Amino acid sequence: MHRTYSMRSARAPTQSQLQNPPPPPSTTKAGRLFGRSNFGHTFRKSAAGAFGPDLAKKLSQLVKMEKNLMRSMELVSRERREVARQLSIWGEEADDDVSDVTDKLGVLIYEIGELEDQFIDRYDQYRVTIKSIRNIEASVQPSRDRKQKITDQIAHLKYKEPNSPKIVVLEQELVRAEAESLVAEAQLSNITREKLKAAFAYMFDAMREHNEKMALIAGYGKHLLELVDDNPVTPGETRPAYDGYENSKHIIQDCEDALSNWVPGNAAVKSSLSVRTRNHRTKRRQQTEGVSLDDRGSWVSAGEHERRVDDDEDEDDEEEVGEEIDDEDEDVKLARKRLEAV
Amino acid sequence: MHRTYSMRSARAPTQSQLQNPPPPPSTTKAGRLFGRSNFGHTFRKSAAGAFGPDLAKKLSQLVKMEKNLMRSMELVSRERREVARQLSIWGEEADDDVSDVTDKLGVLIYEIGELEDQFIDRYDQYRVTIKSIRNIEASVQPSRDRKQKITDQIAHLKYKEPNSPKIVVLEQELVRAEAESLVAEAQLSNITREKLKAAFAYMFDAMREHNEKMALIAGYGKHLLELVDDNPVTPGETRPAYDGYENSKHIIQDCEDALSNWVPGNAAVKSSLSVRTRNHRTKRRQQTEGVSLDDRGSWVSAGEHERRVDDDEDEDDEEEVGEEIDDEDEDVKLARKRLEAV
Repeated sequence: MHRTYSMRSARAPTQSQLQNPPPPPSTTKAGRLFGRSNFGHTFRKSAAGAFGPDLAKKLSQLVKMEKNLMRSMELVSRERREVARQLSIWGEEADDDVSDVTDKLGVLIYEIGELEDQFIDRYDQYRVTIKSIRNIEASVQPSRDRKQKITDQIAHLKYKEPNSPKIVVLEQELVRAEAESLVAEAQLSNITREKLKAAFAYMFDAMREHNEKMALIAGYGKHLLELVDDNPVTPGETRPAYDGYENSKHIIQDCEDALSNWVPGNAAVKSSLSVRTRNHRTKRRQQTEGVSLDDRGSWVSAGEHERRVDDDEDEDDEEEVGEEIDDEDEDVKLARKRLEAV
Repeated sequence: MHRTYSMRSARAPTQSQLQNPPPPPSTTKAGRLFGRSNFGHTFRKSAAGAFGPDLAKKLSQLVKMEKNLMRSMELVSRERREVARQLSIWGEEADDDVSDVTDKLGVLIYEIGELEDQFIDRYDQYRVTIKSIRNIEASVQPSRDRKQKITDQIAHLKYKEPNSPKIVVLEQELVRAEAESLVAEAQLSNITREKLKAAFAYMFDAMREHNEKMALIAGYGKHLLELVDDNPVTPGETRPAYDGYENSKHIIQDCEDALSNWVPGNAAVKSSLSVRTRNHRTKRRQQTEGVSLDDRGSWVSAGEHERRVDDDEDEDDEEEVGEEIDDEDEDVKLARKRLEAV
């Protein structure tokens, strides 16, 4: 096999990776409680949201379903690389042109598998960010519950012992609970929006890069095919000797250059809006350039999020929520003031 | 849920589908012997090529591995659509802007799942074409075996009974076997190249279309995100009313238009070759525009290829090989002439 040029060897980071450093490997790739079978998928989906606060139920389920999806994408990526290897193995014994081209096609398809694998790591960052919405949802639930409980107690007392001094105490408690709840709801509203935007913006960016690169590979694959001599021969006739080794090597090199020089700035596919939509939109433009997952600082390391294998209900997520509450300190003070004035 | 505009309803064919009509549904989607589990994958991979002619062994394995890959892609496509639905369900109870945007994001992600599903159908055409190479490989094996057997018999006789009249008979038989073998090898060489090119050209075209469309969707997804109001609110403050319903609807419509108007002719991603490669290549240009899977006539219907569930060793493939031999009739005559002259 003439693997004169292989994309499998260790490579320098691509331009795109220099602009946006790659995330840590996806957490879904490590330890599987149920092995590589599909059993885990079904179980995870039905168990998700069965415990934990009501508010976070639907999002818990979504997070689990995303994990299933990622596991399936891993399978595709792995099988893609196996297919690439087998294609190269099959071609090895064929004539020179078929052998060279199938080997190089194998290199391209293997690269597709590698890119799919990188995409999964970035998809995981999206998923982890969505998870942080689930966490704030879960943390808001107790303050809602507490408010409800005090309200119920007051109603109960007013009915049973209308003159009880406890009512005053409870009413003061209710004011405090309402203040807490107001803050919690504002946090929920702010964090949900911020994280939702950050998560999907990051995911769509990753998707655009991934898919443009795939389209590039497809184009180079077609160039490779031109090297196969498909002029029919008559029985006994020998084909002219194959002279495409240099060519095929250059095509692979061109492909590698194109892939490693790809940057979001010169993305080819434009999702342009029609005029009516653009008019509607201009007024909103100012507020958009906010959040981004692209700077490394904002990434939550996988280990922090999932210390336990195959289980999303991690305790240490609480810390993170705590931090976010600290960030909102000023809001809390403002709310206090407002409520004291009442 | 405000599903004012949904991509899920029945749609007119896209421009690209009008240019290249879609293939029949993938054969891998129907009846699974082992259910939806992964068990089939492992079994199929190890069993492939264990029977049948040596020559076709490696390609048999590749064909099976491609089937595994397609099954995994189906899983991804299905789970993608589940995720899309769940995202929409989660957002339903949120504030107006989050609710509308998540619902529309769900529509886009569902569309990704649909496109992935369509891609699988086209990938199957690639696989079926690769299978026809396996079939010609398998049919060439007997003629190689026969030639070998007669050669062995002659050697055996020459050693045991050097004067046997049977030797002359066998030598005549060998000439005939050699003629047959010459034709078979030429067919193998021609058909392998033709089908290899056709299969990969078709697959890469499908890949380019699929990935450019995905990149389009990613772009429109980012437009949708701009509709989420992520200005932080203080506790007790209410957000301005959401007025993006028209906008989000238009973005989805723009996306649908972009997807349905996509044609290979205006593909955005260019896999351009560097100068050195282009120079090498020009001389080969003439011979390239040969085979294509794009016309419906050349498609082998799925039913013809796989009458039995989950099993590639179908007898009716033989017919197809027969046809191909008929196509080469003139070559056969030519070879006969050449050999008679000897």
